[in-house]
Amino acid sequence: MSGHSIVSSPANDAKVFADRLERARQSMRAQGVDVALLSLGLDMPYLTGYNAMPLERLTMLVLPAHGDATIVVPVLEAPRVTLMPGVFTLLPWSETVDPVAITARLVKESTPESRVVAVGDQMWARFLVDLMPMLPSTQYRRSVDVIGSLRMRKDQAEIDALRSAGAAVDRIAGELQAGRIALVGRTEAQVSADLSSRILAEGHDVVNFAIVAAGENAASPHHHPGPRVIQKNEIVLCDFGGTMNGYCSDITRCVFTGEIASDVAEAYAVLFEAEAAAVKAAIIGTPCEEVDAVARRIITAAGFGDYFIHRTGHGIGLDAHEDPYIVSGNSLPLEAGHAFSIEPGIYLPGKWGMRLEDIVVATIDGPDSMNHVDHNLIAVDA
Amino acid sequence: MSGHSIVSSPANDAKVFADRLERARQSMRAQGVDVALLSLGLDMPYLTGYNAMPLERLTMLVLPAHGDATIVVPVLEAPRVTLMPGVFTLLPWSETVDPVAITARLVKESTPESRVVAVGDQMWARFLVDLMPMLPSTQYRRSVDVIGSLRMRKDQAEIDALRSAGAAVDRIAGELQAGRIALVGRTEAQVSADLSSRILAEGHDVVNFAIVAAGENAASPHHHPGPRVIQKNEIVLCDFGGTMNGYCSDITRCVFTGEIASDVAEAYAVLFEAEAAAVKAAIIGTPCEEVDAVARRIITAAGFGDYFIHRTGHGIGLDAHEDPYIVSGNSLPLEAGHAFSIEPGIYLPGKWGMRLEDIVVATIDGPDSMNHVDHNLIAVDA
Repeated sequence: MSGHSIVSSPANDAKVFADRLERARQSMRAQGVDVALLSLGLDMPYLTGYNAMPLERLTMLVLPAHGDATIVVPVLEAPRVTLMPGVFTLLPWSETVDPVAITARLVKESTPESRVVAVGDQMWARFLVDLMPMLPSTQYRRSVDVIGSLRMRKDQAEIDALRSAGAAVDRIAGELQAGRIALVGRTEAQVSADLSSRILAEGHDVVNFAIVAAGENAASPHHHPGPRVIQKNEIVLCDFGGTMNGYCSDITRCVFTGEIASDVAEAYAVLFEAEAAAVKAAIIGTPCEEVDAVARRIITAAGFGDYFIHRTGHGIGLDAHEDPYIVSGNSLPLEAGHAFSIEPGIYLPGKWGMRLEDIVVATIDGPDSMNHVDHNLIAVDA
Repeated sequence: MSGHSIVSSPANDAKVFADRLERARQSMRAQGVDVALLSLGLDMPYLTGYNAMPLERLTMLVLPAHGDATIVVPVLEAPRVTLMPGVFTLLPWSETVDPVAITARLVKESTPESRVVAVGDQMWARFLVDLMPMLPSTQYRRSVDVIGSLRMRKDQAEIDALRSAGAAVDRIAGELQAGRIALVGRTEAQVSADLSSRILAEGHDVVNFAIVAAGENAASPHHHPGPRVIQKNEIVLCDFGGTMNGYCSDITRCVFTGEIASDVAEAYAVLFEAEAAAVKAAIIGTPCEEVDAVARRIITAAGFGDYFIHRTGHGIGLDAHEDPYIVSGNSLPLEAGHAFSIEPGIYLPGKWGMRLEDIVVATIDGPDSMNHVDHNLIAVDA
């Protein structure tokens, strides 16, 4: 089930969650938000330890800026919640009542007549559409505006969790580079399934993705692994990760099934340099967009600028993609505890694609990489 | 990746999708909706064959009631879309532009100054929160109001797909009942992983869930399979399903690891009767709530009414849970092609739980079950 609670998180105790809830309330008060409504997504697990099931029955954390937290939960899912008296109250609803109306009542009881509501970024729109007519004189904001800055700054336990998950995918990438994962003659889909099994076997609770893209398919950054059979003498891009004890891994390495073609080797040298430079640039105080620019300048100077068609990275933590985004236009300076991917790529449509990705945490001692497996394009006999 | 397109669906050709889009436009016009905005969820795949990746980069089908369909898609995911000229236009956006602003512009170009917008039920709320200030004088509705009635009525190809998926999980349930899936001494989580492997091996593309709940854990209907070791002489509830060629399976069977305790056998006889009666009642014209009532009356008459804590069923198709819901308060009469689960349950907190589930399609020849494997509580030596 994707709706698992993060029971084995080192942060999983009432004190940690009570502290996070209080910091969320402080952030809400500082920004004039009266109540936060958090449902699907990782804000609720971050604040309470409970992860709602991604189904049509509403689960909602109602968190007033001045008041106690309540989790509205389907009665048949109430036994899934780890109770934390003094941290939040559980309010189960049965099948024939309207949980949106319950939510609206809690909002009205805990906020002024005219109010500002922050809604969870990944809440299903159906609940917001149903809620709006019940709450006149309400202005809506995104939850990331009040919770994002908290979630971005990882504490030591969170960094340790990211490091464990990173070490696990490093081991799989090492097997790939050592030629111990069969490639030639298998389909992308088969290799993807193999990577998925290894992600679980290495201790993740969930597989988030296992992209395998061969040859010209690697030019599609989010390629869906399919029936294409991997051949000799082509690049194979593998981008995979999962969730372990609540925190995510994410790594990309490319291998070449034969003697590396010279055009591929030349481009990879540029990619290697760009990735290393961006990691090195990821120090406290540097704006996110500058980290992106460091990678982009190197790739552009080599003539591949038009083929680097995505941002340099995304934040990572409880969610596989979260703030901060390493992208042009994001002037946010990196802070200690920010965790994010550095993953430049070069994609030549119809020919090949390549990407190189590590997870990095900004610390007072400089960039701390969660991934250490070989960064080179390795020729494999597999 | 969960964002796979339904490439192997029998419905996957341009004519089918053009026809569905036109029926959606007719439904919108009949209900005074000017434009539909569909993102995550299964409305977009139903209408276009493309399933957006569940990530922060916006993908949006903009469907005007009077006008051509456009899919706004991240440029790096554009290669994933199967193009269908004459059916929809693809509008890729690059990393540094705002896709919500692009969506707002398309809405303004294709609708009156004061407009009604239907938004996808499972779209992330963040996009709606960002969109609202860009579209003054706009009233929002849920997409299910205009697309739900179309998706509910399955055509023959869709019913065939449900039948194939149902036959696959029937085979797994048969192995379970034959004692060929080891239970005693293994944890719930291990058996869940075993079921997940079998769901894929039987031809599904994705595992949606594999609930395994033993003894007192079975009293939690959405129990998350965990470290509890299965013992001799207890009930084991298995509720599992996946997606095959775009369509979902979902089945629940219980087995008993030893000689069936008399209180469990007595309750199961009630459950068996309730499920069979509800399936039999699922004929065209019967209100959904009456199907629920048929099962509930039998369970209540036997004294277990307070322990049947959820609705009798949910619709199923592209989505594991969709309309119509078989629940008190839903007066919708069943129509030919409606597909849904019938899954009453009895849950005694701290003791045991049981549920029995089939997928049924309402047809002019009566209820057509997608599941035929033994409905009894089987004692297994496994």
